[in-house]
Amino acid sequence: MRNFNEDNITQAVLDRLGACTNERTRAISEALVRHLHAFVMEIEPTEAEWAQAIAFLTDTGQMCSDTRQEFILLSDTLGVSMLVDAINHRFAGRATETTVLGPFYVEEAREVPLGADISHVADGPPLLVRGTVRDPRGEPVAGALVETWHADDEGFYDVQRSTGRAALDMRARVRTNENGCFWFRSIVPAAYPIPNDGPVGKMLDAQGRHPYRPAHVHFKLSAPGFETIVTHVFLDGDQYLDSDVVFGVKDALIQRLGSVEDEPDTALLVYDFVLPDHRPS
Amino acid sequence: MRNFNEDNITQAVLDRLGACTNERTRAISEALVRHLHAFVMEIEPTEAEWAQAIAFLTDTGQMCSDTRQEFILLSDTLGVSMLVDAINHRFAGRATETTVLGPFYVEEAREVPLGADISHVADGPPLLVRGTVRDPRGEPVAGALVETWHADDEGFYDVQRSTGRAALDMRARVRTNENGCFWFRSIVPAAYPIPNDGPVGKMLDAQGRHPYRPAHVHFKLSAPGFETIVTHVFLDGDQYLDSDVVFGVKDALIQRLGSVEDEPDTALLVYDFVLPDHRPS
Repeated sequence: MRNFNEDNITQAVLDRLGACTNERTRAISEALVRHLHAFVMEIEPTEAEWAQAIAFLTDTGQMCSDTRQEFILLSDTLGVSMLVDAINHRFAGRATETTVLGPFYVEEAREVPLGADISHVADGPPLLVRGTVRDPRGEPVAGALVETWHADDEGFYDVQRSTGRAALDMRARVRTNENGCFWFRSIVPAAYPIPNDGPVGKMLDAQGRHPYRPAHVHFKLSAPGFETIVTHVFLDGDQYLDSDVVFGVKDALIQRLGSVEDEPDTALLVYDFVLPDHRPS
Repeated sequence: MRNFNEDNITQAVLDRLGACTNERTRAISEALVRHLHAFVMEIEPTEAEWAQAIAFLTDTGQMCSDTRQEFILLSDTLGVSMLVDAINHRFAGRATETTVLGPFYVEEAREVPLGADISHVADGPPLLVRGTVRDPRGEPVAGALVETWHADDEGFYDVQRSTGRAALDMRARVRTNENGCFWFRSIVPAAYPIPNDGPVGKMLDAQGRHPYRPAHVHFKLSAPGFETIVTHVFLDGDQYLDSDVVFGVKDALIQRLGSVEDEPDTALLVYDFVLPDHRPS
């Protein structure tokens, strides 16, 4: 149990996991060791490169705060978040397709009445969002919780503004009425670069990639008896639909903005969601 | 360039790296994406497990400070540091074997004269350390820089004590004399658990592993014309020699403590180092 080298270190670490009594923890740990060692064997990092990797991970952790989640950004930009999403939403059937949660979800957004304007501070063209929540058989789901959040017309979320969380804006929770309908007012969000003044921004630069996401409105939908889904509705025509830095775009989630009758200045976004039935566990 | 799923997301991310102009950065990024996605495909994390992984990495980054490097501990305990060490020290020939740097190296340790006592604050049995630095042909290397650091008799490094870096202790730099010899006084270090009050400690717990390292003295040796080496000398007889939590032990680095003539209470640690010639670059 000593004198480890390239040929025996991986097995030595795997052997050390033999005392792990939780089967899932052991399986994850073993897979981590095998894949991590295979990665290191393939790239054969110099000691300076290894030190750089340690510094990158450290900086990524230290960049995190109440309003910034740099490791989610890293997962998103490496396509891992979409992969995890795909793995967890196989066989969705007729349910609405899902996409990444992103780093700007805030759990404690306030619940507002149907029709409320959820944008108080931010500027931008007025927007009416309207939709339904149905089950896979087409029946309306009454009382479904619709959580929504989006960026302003300069592409910033409330939590990115200096006011911070003190002023939650462009985010709220509403509940569907007895017909499974919901609606609220806000402003039209713009495409935006993900926060790129940290380690992930440097990585994208080094990789020759732009940091942009196409304009979208986030939704998290939940109701008793159904699987919760996390998704966006993307605005049709956006120049970044085919190069979303986090690989989140799906055709079925793109919607063209319409206009509201009698309110020529107000854009209209309509989307009808279908919640999946509970999966057998 | 949208509608990504388990079958096409990995290739999509790899394609996105096509604009990366630095060949090494592209190779590392591509390997990272391939191995990371393969890991995720194998374990098929739930969304809650993925969130736990994000939280683990975030906590690991946030645990880092001037005197604590939790990502190095993670790399060490997963056997990655020893793997990187092995990759970078192939064909060492007659040179001294290497092992991990560890998280307690401090660059600005002070240089002291030969024979100085480098332990000022810590308690422990007195120790005389004596050695030589030679080239692969057996010739002494004069003026070689010998950096050394070690734990106290309770297994703590200076930087782990509340006094922090203000009081560097049990660490110093000395230079070999014209015969390639060096010596200094200190105290006998004890085996110790790596810092385990953070995420890495929780990981070891979950994996059913103990956090101990066998007692050792660290050395970093450098001289113009030679490769720098990082190594330890382990104290023979330690109960953790075969289960070092960071996989760092090599037989050739284990030395039995002797005693100093005319100083019955002082232990003696002798080690003769061989610096490797510069590798052709």
